[in-house]
Amino acid sequence: MGRLWGAQTQRSLQNFDIGGERERMPEPIVRAFGILKKCAAKVNMEYGLDPAIGKAIMQAAQEVAEGKLNDHFPLVVWQTGSGTQSNMNANEVIANRAAEILGHKRGEKYVHPNDHVNRAQSSNDTFPTVMHIAAGMEINSRLIPKLNTLHSTLHSKSIEFKDIVKIGRTHTQDATPLTLGQEFSGYTTQVSYFPFCMENANLDAWQLAQGGTAVGTGLNTKKGFDVKIARAVAEETNLPFVTAENKFEALAAHDAFVECSGALNTIATSLMKIANDIRLLGSGPRCGLGELILPENEPGSSIMPGKVNPTQCEALTMVCAQVMGNNVAITVGGSNGHFELNVFKPMIASCLLHSARLLGDASASFEKNCVRGIQANKERISKLLHESLMLVTSLNPKIGYDNAAAVAKLAHKEGSTLKEAALKLGVLTSEEFDTLVVPEKMIGPTD
Amino acid sequence: MGRLWGAQTQRSLQNFDIGGERERMPEPIVRAFGILKKCAAKVNMEYGLDPAIGKAIMQAAQEVAEGKLNDHFPLVVWQTGSGTQSNMNANEVIANRAAEILGHKRGEKYVHPNDHVNRAQSSNDTFPTVMHIAAGMEINSRLIPKLNTLHSTLHSKSIEFKDIVKIGRTHTQDATPLTLGQEFSGYTTQVSYFPFCMENANLDAWQLAQGGTAVGTGLNTKKGFDVKIARAVAEETNLPFVTAENKFEALAAHDAFVECSGALNTIATSLMKIANDIRLLGSGPRCGLGELILPENEPGSSIMPGKVNPTQCEALTMVCAQVMGNNVAITVGGSNGHFELNVFKPMIASCLLHSARLLGDASASFEKNCVRGIQANKERISKLLHESLMLVTSLNPKIGYDNAAAVAKLAHKEGSTLKEAALKLGVLTSEEFDTLVVPEKMIGPTD
Amino acid sequence: MGRLWGAQTQRSLQNFDIGGERERMPEPIVRAFGILKKCAAKVNMEYGLDPAIGKAIMQAAQEVAEGKLNDHFPLVVWQTGSGTQSNMNANEVIANRAAEILGHKRGEKYVHPNDHVNRAQSSNDTFPTVMHIAAGMEINSRLIPKLNTLHSTLHSKSIEFKDIVKIGRTHTQDATPLTLGQEFSGYTTQVSYFPFCMENANLDAWQLAQGGTAVGTGLNTKKGFDVKIARAVAEETNLPFVTAENKFEALAAHDAFVECSGALNTIATSLMKIANDIRLLGSGPRCGLGELILPENEPGSSIMPGKVNPTQCEALTMVCAQVMGNNVAITVGGSNGHFELNVFKPMIASCLLHSARLLGDASASFEKNCVRGIQANKERISKLLHESLMLVTSLNPKIGYDNAAAVAKLAHKEGSTLKEAALKLGVLTSEEFDTLVVPEKMIGPTD
Amino acid sequence: MGRLWGAQTQRSLQNFDIGGERERMPEPIVRAFGILKKCAAKVNMEYGLDPAIGKAIMQAAQEVAEGKLNDHFPLVVWQTGSGTQSNMNANEVIANRAAEILGHKRGEKYVHPNDHVNRAQSSNDTFPTVMHIAAGMEINSRLIPKLNTLHSTLHSKSIEFKDIVKIGRTHTQDATPLTLGQEFSGYTTQVSYFPFCMENANLDAWQLAQGGTAVGTGLNTKKGFDVKIARAVAEETNLPFVTAENKFEALAAHDAFVECSGALNTIATSLMKIANDIRLLGSGPRCGLGELILPENEPGSSIMPGKVNPTQCEALTMVCAQVMGNNVAITVGGSNGHFELNVFKPMIASCLLHSARLLGDASASFEKNCVRGIQANKERISKLLHESLMLVTSLNPKIGYDNAAAVAKLAHKEGSTLKEAALKLGVLTSEEFDTLVVPEKMIGPTD
Repeated sequence: MGRLWGAQTQRSLQNFDIGGERERMPEPIVRAFGILKKCAAKVNMEYGLDPAIGKAIMQAAQEVAEGKLNDHFPLVVWQTGSGTQSNMNANEVIANRAAEILGHKRGEKYVHPNDHVNRAQSSNDTFPTVMHIAAGMEINSRLIPKLNTLHSTLHSKSIEFKDIVKIGRTHTQDATPLTLGQEFSGYTTQVSYFPFCMENANLDAWQLAQGGTAVGTGLNTKKGFDVKIARAVAEETNLPFVTAENKFEALAAHDAFVECSGALNTIATSLMKIANDIRLLGSGPRCGLGELILPENEPGSSIMPGKVNPTQCEALTMVCAQVMGNNVAITVGGSNGHFELNVFKPMIASCLLHSARLLGDASASFEKNCVRGIQANKERISKLLHESLMLVTSLNPKIGYDNAAAVAKLAHKEGSTLKEAALKLGVLTSEEFDTLVVPEKMIGPTD
Repeated sequence: MGRLWGAQTQRSLQNFDIGGERERMPEPIVRAFGILKKCAAKVNMEYGLDPAIGKAIMQAAQEVAEGKLNDHFPLVVWQTGSGTQSNMNANEVIANRAAEILGHKRGEKYVHPNDHVNRAQSSNDTFPTVMHIAAGMEINSRLIPKLNTLHSTLHSKSIEFKDIVKIGRTHTQDATPLTLGQEFSGYTTQVSYFPFCMENANLDAWQLAQGGTAVGTGLNTKKGFDVKIARAVAEETNLPFVTAENKFEALAAHDAFVECSGALNTIATSLMKIANDIRLLGSGPRCGLGELILPENEPGSSIMPGKVNPTQCEALTMVCAQVMGNNVAITVGGSNGHFELNVFKPMIASCLLHSARLLGDASASFEKNCVRGIQANKERISKLLHESLMLVTSLNPKIGYDNAAAVAKLAHKEGSTLKEAALKLGVLTSEEFDTLVVPEKMIGPTD
Repeated sequence: MGRLWGAQTQRSLQNFDIGGERERMPEPIVRAFGILKKCAAKVNMEYGLDPAIGKAIMQAAQEVAEGKLNDHFPLVVWQTGSGTQSNMNANEVIANRAAEILGHKRGEKYVHPNDHVNRAQSSNDTFPTVMHIAAGMEINSRLIPKLNTLHSTLHSKSIEFKDIVKIGRTHTQDATPLTLGQEFSGYTTQVSYFPFCMENANLDAWQLAQGGTAVGTGLNTKKGFDVKIARAVAEETNLPFVTAENKFEALAAHDAFVECSGALNTIATSLMKIANDIRLLGSGPRCGLGELILPENEPGSSIMPGKVNPTQCEALTMVCAQVMGNNVAITVGGSNGHFELNVFKPMIASCLLHSARLLGDASASFEKNCVRGIQANKERISKLLHESLMLVTSLNPKIGYDNAAAVAKLAHKEGSTLKEAALKLGVLTSEEFDTLVVPEKMIGPTD
Repeated sequence: MGRLWGAQTQRSLQNFDIGGERERMPEPIVRAFGILKKCAAKVNMEYGLDPAIGKAIMQAAQEVAEGKLNDHFPLVVWQTGSGTQSNMNANEVIANRAAEILGHKRGEKYVHPNDHVNRAQSSNDTFPTVMHIAAGMEINSRLIPKLNTLHSTLHSKSIEFKDIVKIGRTHTQDATPLTLGQEFSGYTTQVSYFPFCMENANLDAWQLAQGGTAVGTGLNTKKGFDVKIARAVAEETNLPFVTAENKFEALAAHDAFVECSGALNTIATSLMKIANDIRLLGSGPRCGLGELILPENEPGSSIMPGKVNPTQCEALTMVCAQVMGNNVAITVGGSNGHFELNVFKPMIASCLLHSARLLGDASASFEKNCVRGIQANKERISKLLHESLMLVTSLNPKIGYDNAAAVAKLAHKEGSTLKEAALKLGVLTSEEFDTLVVPEKMIGPTD
């Protein structure tokens, strides 16, 4: 099958030779164009578009929405900042395909890219509309479910580990104990906020610019067109899209995307902390902290059993760094709009979709290939806990602060256990020590 | 009055000679320590703290809360990452001041900084608590009201300008018309989202870590202490503070602050766009766009009347750039926590308070000294509108696309008006032209 | 041709299902692996590698270096942070291809991926080595030449426009005049610093880690191996690569890449300013500044002749925003190394190569499709210049400050020219005015 | 002493009520104004400025340069983006002070702020000039010496620790050994590049804009004024300042500052890695890695001897995060210039000076209070090294890969030493083991 695109697409290909094929407009944008053009044809038929042509457009647009015509969208992100050329790419491909469906040849414009496919639309309102459709779908259908799965697995782990008492660490230094379950409950709580964070940030993202046409006034549309098309998109996607409260804002600014990216940035920040903790707690096998046993996914070193590189943590933290960077790119793009149109649209859309996709995929990979299989190294955890000098705190009520401090200092100096030091100083008996020093009683407030 | 601080504060002063006095812990943090320590004394009295000492602590802490003892908080942000030294600074100052109130000398520890003032607390839960108190107060009492005022003034302007039809601009190029009121309604809508954006982002910020003590377990507190102290802070501040759902998360991560900073970053991005538009629309007086007349606040150039530098836009956009930078600093700090404690706390707090203060103050200054006094240069607006070639669109239905294009091309080539070109080409009469070319009819969808 | 990769590559494909095909390791990294493995085989033959196998490896590696086997490198950036899996991908592909060359079957390991192709190497030194080879080649062969072409064209424009006197603008407001050539000389100077900026930042990038093996000690290599392999790479690429001064630094940190990215960030910042100026100076055609006429690359609006969207400026400024974002991602990655190995290597490499490629391509596109064709709208420039009130400055010496100010104020108030105002006030004659007000004399210091 | 500032300063105070006193223009800028105005008076006397007035200005400006009049510079950073108001603040203070010196009253303008102090200058060239003077002095006099001291101390440590063999760690996991001295040599090398990095980035920072006046043309100056004033500043500061190659670039863009900030960002990235390693290597005392003993600067926990919080690492890493953030702020500011003037000057200057000061001070504090006192915990290091399973690699040549692997696997499974496992499997004798397993032979390439 030859190319379905037309002259305007071809000209853009020649004028914007930037970055190569990897830089093509992201697939979710292309598919969203399919959805939008299908809905536009449907609504336009209510306003007088020839039904035969309208239905052919709907069918052709459906193929775009399903990704069947991806190869006919060769344009890169780095084009005009309004995304006009990708809008025309969609118009040309759908017009040619619709013409074919109706038994006409490509290029003869039996179905016209502008007059029929782009009817009552402008690039200036279609592109922000597809940005919102694509982001809404990606975030709801791919990202949030993956985050929820990660949350669920972390929650299971916090229950699985609820009775394992371990040393706490603050300032990277030994501190008072907690359970491994409590430690994981912190991670679980962090991740539990992600969907709310996304949803709050996403509220404005449901607003569609369609109906604003060139500058937000809606020139060349009929009253009600904007509401109808938003409703059609909502039905088509089963997502709560509505028409934008103010079309001038919807074309000229992308604050909703900046806000969304801020939420993605928060998630990245949070996952970076969690993944870092897990790789450090799993460090070893002999010379690290060694409290967690991470699943061994790749052949470890051929000679050194037990060397399990925390590769899933590494992939995830690299993704987090990229998301933080994309957030700055989106911020810069968002702040540089001029007058009635922000012309950083393709870059903003591309970065947001990139961040959402990477975070979702990396979270899923991390959940499946790492978190799910984490085991506690109970022996090691117990050994570290009982070696800790921190437990001396429990002796204060019985032998007084000064004696307790003396015990701890002696143990530190001689490299002995607290018990050995206490017995050597003769401040209590072996039985007394065992009764008093019980880390399990140090993991919560007292009655 | 000599210094009220003690040995630990003094030692920090010597060990962290970084940045000089400008880098002192922000005042809202110091005041929040006053609030927290007052509430802690109040709750601690319920749990057995000597009432005489408790009341003296409350009185001394109130003085800190009111900013009366600011000079006794000399420590810089760049200290231990838990903020321990500032917590001890607060403990020492309040203990000494409370001792004075009770007729004792400073330094004799009649009121003990640790045993009394810091009772049932740890730096690890007090510092995140004061971060949240300070941020909650600053955002609610200072930032949001100022943003609301800006919104209100922009809204007034959008009404004031509702009948002024002007040329639209997309890609910085002439486009179809809209009203100046519509253009300002875009700005108004952008700003109308700010409070929601802050409030959504801020939801987790109402959660207080207090009661988690050293690692989140609440060791050394009594059951219920956490809930009582959050309630006391809520009463004291009249803000909806609650105890944190999970204390491990509350010490180890600052995702709530990263989210808040993301909201501030969104606001900065949005204000950058608005301020840029306003200075460009006000550019001139002769050789720019000249559609807006900005208030002249400073003596303009001594020789050139009419040169009004958009200095408020400049101050505001510089603030926006700083907020974007602080957002990255907070992101980096937030992502670098280790185990049970994030030790970038003072930096994160300082950056967030810096951003909130600057955005609030700059928005207020921009509103008062710029937006409020903006006037439309109606003559200039009208002149540009009627010179625009864009209006030719209206002729399509009457004389056909080809004739209309010919008119526009001739006008562009000869630098004439559309009307002159139309008459020269003889495609319609002067009266017909005047009837058809009515920009006022191009500013919305048709029935 | 079936796949040449082996088991380790396949396992990575399954374990790191992140981002899809767009996220594959960048081609310059793949090609650099070809160069490195070819050089390694060559040097290893000096240390005892069987010459028949060595030569087959060299031939296979050459195919990789030429991009002929790109399809056999399916792994994504988001894998282990050491890039081990891509190193093994290279070893497997080259081993299988070399075996084929020697008449053996794939998979039977006649040429062994580890023992032969990876001989005396570790992922920990090969990956940073290919990062530096790829970056050095991309920056020198693609980026810098394109920046030089842009500089050259801007320089031509500054000469072409050297006699066109125009109004200056500061604070976006009318200011004293300068020539359009002077204005372009500012852009030219900015761009003239780019190559130096890149080269300075790049000095450390010539240092190759190869020879450090697993932790930087060079265990399992022979003395002199590091120097020889760097020399071989230098010969192969004709670029000044040397062995790294300190291999521990070369594995554990990527400061050289952070520095390089800082240089790319500087270039992006600079180009953003230039592209913004050009689109604003070209704004119009009737209602903007209109001093520049930008080339019309795409069909303008079908109805509005003269509407030329500054699409090349838009593509370039979007690229600049992305580069600024990538700089933050690289910074975060660079700061997060642990102990003997930074494990953000693939992300850092990918972002840097992305930035360099985009900046180069977008600069070339901007040069070819925009800058080269810029024309001065002399009529418009002259009109604005002579309407400006700023020229009144020239009258001071003749009629005194007060009279000059009165002239300017009257002109501003009445919307008249300075000359009309001067004549109306009777402060000088028409001839005197024409003699005194000569913008051409206001464009430099006086003797 | 009452205030020396005048009406323009006062008006700015009222119109820019943003951020409070902490946000005042940084002191190095104020002092640089003193230097510049002194030099301007000196050069202006060559061009006809009354010598009595000129000398009084020089004396008053010298007081500003020495910081004696800091209190008279109340303006905040968040003012007009050209810094005009701070330039006028300097002009007013120096004029009034010079008048006093000559026996006249303040406010009577015997010495005129504009005609005398600001003679042949414009804010548009003075502010970028003081930016460069301030940055040049801060970086050369404060930052670089402190970085050099840190380098020197790290170098000493790398020598002190040269014979201590320890386990290496990659991916945070146990790896082959190296010496602690080698590990510190990596840090030393990183820091050794800092001065070059700053100096390379700083090359353009020596260029002074002075002489460009309002738009870069030098209107109202005499030929040669620019060169003379740059030479005067160079003499006054003993630093290699020269007049800017192109004054248009020097006013309209701040690429030199963006580049400088990129160098500071590189240093911050690098120090973050080093400080992180040191705190992790010093983690413990019992339950961490415990290889380093960090100096105990503050009273540790009252009950737990040996708990040394790595507070200097914490202060330094917080500074690094702030510097990364400031880099983004500077990037955004640098990219947003318009036409002949970038109006983000005070923010750019403030952020750069903030970053330079914090990095210098924090490096000095880190060197003095941490690095200098680091001790190796030889016993711990040795214990970890000899427990490591990694050393099995040495057995390969003697007992073959399969036997060696069996030894390692058994040791890992049983938690025993390699020696115990080897003896249990009977693959070699105790003496043979001791002869073969010598970590000291694993720290470099072989002959």
